[in-house]
Amino acid sequence: MPESAHPHLLIVGGGFAGLWAARALAGAPVRITLLDRGNHHLFQPLLYQVATAGLSSPDIAAPLRHILRKQKNVTVLMGEAVAVDSADRQVRLADGDTLRYDFLLLASGATHAYFGHDDWAPHAPGLKTLDDALLIRRRILSAFERAEASDDDAERKAQLTFAIVGGGPTGVELAGTLAEIARQTLKREFRRIDPRQARVLLLEAGPRVLSTFPESLSLKAQRQLERLGVEVRTGSAVTHIDADSVMLGDERIATRTVLWAAGVAASPLARSLGVPLDRAGRVPVEPDLSVSGQPQIFVGGDLATLLQVNGKSVPGVAPAAKQMGNHIAATILARIAGRATKPFRYRDWGNLATIGRRAAIVDLGKLRFSGFPAWSFWLVAHIFFLIGFRNRMVVLLDWAVAYWTHQRNARIIVGRDD
Amino acid sequence: MPESAHPHLLIVGGGFAGLWAARALAGAPVRITLLDRGNHHLFQPLLYQVATAGLSSPDIAAPLRHILRKQKNVTVLMGEAVAVDSADRQVRLADGDTLRYDFLLLASGATHAYFGHDDWAPHAPGLKTLDDALLIRRRILSAFERAEASDDDAERKAQLTFAIVGGGPTGVELAGTLAEIARQTLKREFRRIDPRQARVLLLEAGPRVLSTFPESLSLKAQRQLERLGVEVRTGSAVTHIDADSVMLGDERIATRTVLWAAGVAASPLARSLGVPLDRAGRVPVEPDLSVSGQPQIFVGGDLATLLQVNGKSVPGVAPAAKQMGNHIAATILARIAGRATKPFRYRDWGNLATIGRRAAIVDLGKLRFSGFPAWSFWLVAHIFFLIGFRNRMVVLLDWAVAYWTHQRNARIIVGRDD
Repeated sequence: MPESAHPHLLIVGGGFAGLWAARALAGAPVRITLLDRGNHHLFQPLLYQVATAGLSSPDIAAPLRHILRKQKNVTVLMGEAVAVDSADRQVRLADGDTLRYDFLLLASGATHAYFGHDDWAPHAPGLKTLDDALLIRRRILSAFERAEASDDDAERKAQLTFAIVGGGPTGVELAGTLAEIARQTLKREFRRIDPRQARVLLLEAGPRVLSTFPESLSLKAQRQLERLGVEVRTGSAVTHIDADSVMLGDERIATRTVLWAAGVAASPLARSLGVPLDRAGRVPVEPDLSVSGQPQIFVGGDLATLLQVNGKSVPGVAPAAKQMGNHIAATILARIAGRATKPFRYRDWGNLATIGRRAAIVDLGKLRFSGFPAWSFWLVAHIFFLIGFRNRMVVLLDWAVAYWTHQRNARIIVGRDD
Repeated sequence: MPESAHPHLLIVGGGFAGLWAARALAGAPVRITLLDRGNHHLFQPLLYQVATAGLSSPDIAAPLRHILRKQKNVTVLMGEAVAVDSADRQVRLADGDTLRYDFLLLASGATHAYFGHDDWAPHAPGLKTLDDALLIRRRILSAFERAEASDDDAERKAQLTFAIVGGGPTGVELAGTLAEIARQTLKREFRRIDPRQARVLLLEAGPRVLSTFPESLSLKAQRQLERLGVEVRTGSAVTHIDADSVMLGDERIATRTVLWAAGVAASPLARSLGVPLDRAGRVPVEPDLSVSGQPQIFVGGDLATLLQVNGKSVPGVAPAAKQMGNHIAATILARIAGRATKPFRYRDWGNLATIGRRAAIVDLGKLRFSGFPAWSFWLVAHIFFLIGFRNRMVVLLDWAVAYWTHQRNARIIVGRDD
């Protein structure tokens, strides 16, 4: 069979699910087009480090076409998919072009959701892309600069108040790291303010932070956060956000920097599939990760939702997305060969969350630990999984220097808010 | 004398002149405020490496308040000066605040000048700040992406045509590096285009590139550029630039990426001094670098213009700016102590320009050389002068990896054009 007669797999999204599917099909009789809005794969678990000036963008991102340069059956294209036309087996792009497919993998991930309060978005940016991270970095660093430049006590206090909405992994990481920046990184660099007086608030509507972990670890995480200087407010639902404040019920907190880590929604592309979505906009998939009634369309990563045999959903984490990508690749190969396909089974290696310097929690099922051992475990695991030798070296160097000096090397304000 | 009674020096601009003046006054009986629009000192000689994806922003920038954290007589403020009110000895800021001074050092540098064609600016960005560098990086990398995505031959050709206007050091660096990216870095990563077919044009209105160097070195530079694959067009005045093309006289060249390295103008702040400026908007200074008739105001770096005893102007290069900063600090100390001041003398250590991989020219007066020895000399000199151990290590690592693999580690498209 000539190469041009191989079936065409179109992958939308170069995250963990999409990239792993493409790599698993190296050398296979499939022509692959990998479409992404950006030009890079992002190691999202370390994105909060870019937002908090510990790492620079290229440390945690690599161009997709560079990663896949040796895989001759892949064409990488930068572009934005806006709709699936499953009747004609094609995807429409934002620039009006269309791409035809024999198999389609939708893996365009999730975006922020403001629970019907889209007017909060400009005042409370979320963290999903490098652009988001650079915006958050700019806001955090500029707040300290404006506090130093201000002569007004109330203004200075508001500039030095940081509110993070949402006590999941991202909110906890941002809060812990922000507290460290204020207490350690910046402590001797200002003349008019004392950055250690900054308030870092972590606001969680539910009863505890990191609610996907066992309760004992959640409590340990909260204690570690408080030791770093974070004010943890559980049971605190945010009722209003504007440029100057955040409201918790009737309590108004003056702040100029609110970060959103509370809600995600699946990418809007899923709507064009014409199947019912779940409340978060995710596509319920069949056991083989295909779409009900459209067996040539697969959905992977954060865009998919699937109940496991234990009654829980497959979590929206990187290992699950990678496993889905691999499974979809195997399913496509089986279909081409006329073999039977297998249902997807998520293999749970454990759950870990980092909190700050020497602070983390790890849940490996039977084995649970926290503090410095958990932090060391997290560090090794994350550097190991970072793509590319150079990135590993630079990240290691940045972290070694940061650990000893409390410094953060990416403290550069670039760009301006619109 | 109590500290608060020390005279107040306001420095506008944290570049080489401003930062070196502040550092030279460590421990001196002077209160210093260093005002900058950004939060960082920029190692401008390597800015083209950020624009061409070889280095990331934090590699060549360091927060001013971190550099000066141990110097207790300096307060660093982020803000933009818009006018000098010399009658009241104060500077007005963009946010309406004012800062009083006893001594003032204006060192706010230069910006791009389009010779009366400001409508060219959006189509031909120049390179002065990190924001400029990230914009240029985005445009270069996006042009290759759009060429790969296009089905139209003419469009693909236009996307793969890059025009750099101006054959000075910045233009030569950009052209040489862009040619290397097309010929080496990207060569196996595209499936539909061959990046090696990209045209890189260096357009210089004058008779030769790098005109501040001796003619023999200019010719060597041109030959090295041509060997890297750059089309050098001297005697080519640009008559029009728009989103789709550049015009040389009556010749129209279709291109989607024009970079501006042709003209600089001093920062507009100088106009408020009320003294005559030169054609480029620079302030003609007295031999001690003060403003005529306003001895408490000094001007340093690219904003100043001064004829040397040999009849040539002090060049707008980093070593001259540093020497000016040091000289102004010494003059202020002499004035406070009631001692006589000395005229500024520029000590010329030589002139060097890099062209690309293994290509550069060096002019040390009696000693002139080019090619690999010049490139090695340039490399050592630049890494040595980079601020901060961490930066030196990361830049070295980036360059070592880049040299052996032809890779560029910052090939990440971030942000969008407005």
